[in-house]
Amino acid sequence: MRISELSRRSGVPITTIKHYLREGLLPPGRPTAATQAEYTEAHLRRLRLIRALIGVRGLSTKAAREVLAAVSEHEADTHQILGLVLGARPTSTTEPAARPGAAETDALLSEMGWEVSPHAPARAVVAQTLETLRTLGVEYDWRSLIPYAALAERTATLDLDQLNATADPLEQAERAVLLTVLLEPALLALRRLAQEDESAKRYGG
Amino acid sequence: MRISELSRRSGVPITTIKHYLREGLLPPGRPTAATQAEYTEAHLRRLRLIRALIGVRGLSTKAAREVLAAVSEHEADTHQILGLVLGARPTSTTEPAARPGAAETDALLSEMGWEVSPHAPARAVVAQTLETLRTLGVEYDWRSLIPYAALAERTATLDLDQLNATADPLEQAERAVLLTVLLEPALLALRRLAQEDESAKRYGG
Repeated sequence: MRISELSRRSGVPITTIKHYLREGLLPPGRPTAATQAEYTEAHLRRLRLIRALIGVRGLSTKAAREVLAAVSEHEADTHQILGLVLGARPTSTTEPAARPGAAETDALLSEMGWEVSPHAPARAVVAQTLETLRTLGVEYDWRSLIPYAALAERTATLDLDQLNATADPLEQAERAVLLTVLLEPALLALRRLAQEDESAKRYGG
Repeated sequence: MRISELSRRSGVPITTIKHYLREGLLPPGRPTAATQAEYTEAHLRRLRLIRALIGVRGLSTKAAREVLAAVSEHEADTHQILGLVLGARPTSTTEPAARPGAAETDALLSEMGWEVSPHAPARAVVAQTLETLRTLGVEYDWRSLIPYAALAERTATLDLDQLNATADPLEQAERAVLLTVLLEPALLALRRLAQEDESAKRYGG
């Protein structure tokens, strides 16, 4: 297909596609004339993944390029690809700084029996939350997070079930980014709506 | 207690307490000398709620003043107070703009049997998510959100159980803000960690 069709089918403007070509994120099409090139379905899938990584996950061009290179390298390893695009396994191997809350986060993960990378950025978020609550004078036992973690486990099962339908690794990676990142505000919104309903049922007149 | 003890026990700096006093968010203490005043446990509870609303929920001074006034007015009505501090019921009564996704959000809420205000801002977030997914070419049926909503319902039950221990309405309101807002990043982080674990279990080598 021509670049115009690639733009139409992906919803990505031609100027943006040209930018991705210049930056080496998208490989060049097969030249058909001095100013024309032919693009394939593989270009379309890769373009969609680039948009998901940059436009939705908010990665820099440089970070997206690294993720894409790593994805190409591990195309047969779904777990590796999901880890790469969701950012659970950053390329950096620096040890996470020891901080209050880190030991409790470890205890929670071990209680749940979860197998997660020591570098997963989400660990620090849990540790930071426990720390912040304590700074604000809320006595919060990490064990209070166990039932939340159990619900997160069921949420993750739903998330991965939603990817099963797609066979192509790039398409699956794109869907993983979109459904993980874009559903985040919706899941928090559902919690707020459910809180309102639950509060009405308990205390409403 | 003196302002210095109020500061120590709340963790709020004296200059910030003086700012809240000037802004009328915190009622003045009982004067004991020309430059001294005596504060009570009620001041402490109110101060903690102010900090939760401004420092954690990110409300403006003006918005916090309105919420505090409304909370004082409905001190006996827990559902009303939770709605006020969590922002499910803004004072504005303008009709939410009709947007794509709104009808599907209504369908979801009705499917769940949830009783929520037509002005709840979280409705628009769900509608916006459905819209964005569609814009990005993901065919996403609102019915796919039903199992997520069911898990949100169980999360909200945990949330409200955690408030039960507190009897004082201001304290309960503070706890509701802290545990709702501060747990948000932690809940999303738990989902990411659970995804990594689930992906390792399904696809790991």
